[in-house]
Amino acid sequence: MITFWYEFASTYSYLSAMRIDALAEAKGVEVEWKPFLLGPIFAAQGWNTSPFNIYPAKGQYMWRDMERRAAKYGIPIKRPVTSDGGWPRSSVKAARLALVGLNEGWGQEFSRLVYIGEFSDHADITDEEILSNWIRQAGGDPLHAFKTIQSDALKGQLRQNTEDAISAGVFGAPSFTVGEELFWGDDRLEDALDLAASH
Amino acid sequence: MITFWYEFASTYSYLSAMRIDALAEAKGVEVEWKPFLLGPIFAAQGWNTSPFNIYPAKGQYMWRDMERRAAKYGIPIKRPVTSDGGWPRSSVKAARLALVGLNEGWGQEFSRLVYIGEFSDHADITDEEILSNWIRQAGGDPLHAFKTIQSDALKGQLRQNTEDAISAGVFGAPSFTVGEELFWGDDRLEDALDLAASH
Repeated sequence: MITFWYEFASTYSYLSAMRIDALAEAKGVEVEWKPFLLGPIFAAQGWNTSPFNIYPAKGQYMWRDMERRAAKYGIPIKRPVTSDGGWPRSSVKAARLALVGLNEGWGQEFSRLVYIGEFSDHADITDEEILSNWIRQAGGDPLHAFKTIQSDALKGQLRQNTEDAISAGVFGAPSFTVGEELFWGDDRLEDALDLAASH
Repeated sequence: MITFWYEFASTYSYLSAMRIDALAEAKGVEVEWKPFLLGPIFAAQGWNTSPFNIYPAKGQYMWRDMERRAAKYGIPIKRPVTSDGGWPRSSVKAARLALVGLNEGWGQEFSRLVYIGEFSDHADITDEEILSNWIRQAGGDPLHAFKTIQSDALKGQLRQNTEDAISAGVFGAPSFTVGEELFWGDDRLEDALDLAASH
């Protein structure tokens, strides 16, 4: 069993979201998808946006590295932009919807659709019409899902995921935990799965 | 041809220093070793020490990750400490000596000895007696080397390496460049070498 900690604003989480299920199945490992928010974690470090924006050299490198990694894995990618050139977009709404989906069985497919839209098609992951389409495609009911994310229980569940991430030592995304062992970055996915498979 | 940008305060550079020559030789790639200083680059980002110290969760993870990676590669490792519990030690003197060595043909072996001493044996890489032993072991003349690092020419060469690193987009270590293409992190070494071999 492996826990996959992901955040929709995280570029490298996109690669893991597209890769983890097939790789885990091949190794006989069960995957627990856990969306969480990096915002509170970054804010505690004094960051008010992605470190890839705060440190431009690192950001420029990250996009080139993402292009190379995506090409290697056959995953489509197009650097996201918003009207003001900003990135990332707010991921809270999408993360709450993913949680509803994970509670109901359509969350993994929905999460992949969000990532594909965001990073290969510049889709606005805060747009309720676009999100509704993805919910339907993944097998969920948009009306019900949008109602559910307004409940305190659902909001609390996402806050709890973020608290759990911090407790597990998570400081970035994607991260993977296998028992007490923490792995950070899509490039550690195979190592994490190997450990999970050996248990 | 691949350029290997390294810094003695960088933990992951240790892994690359131990791995790069054998991997490059197997692929028929020539390696240019380029020591540089992260201090000025980090200072420009507002950091006065290693980001692994500034962000404790990241630092704690890094050491665990280093232990796992080192074990995977059969490289010895022991978390370095100094009398005040601080890390990293100043790497300027060792970097200047490495440059003398690279100019004279004993720099790669000296660099490996510095890394092994630092990260597997808590050796003080600012201690002139210890450094002298490594110079001798690598085939250099300590008296001559310590005289050379006081010259403006040698000091200027290290400053130039750091300027060149910044121009190449380097923001951390280890980094690798193949033409205009930049790779960051020991876990990108194989990709960088594959690109170099394909040229």
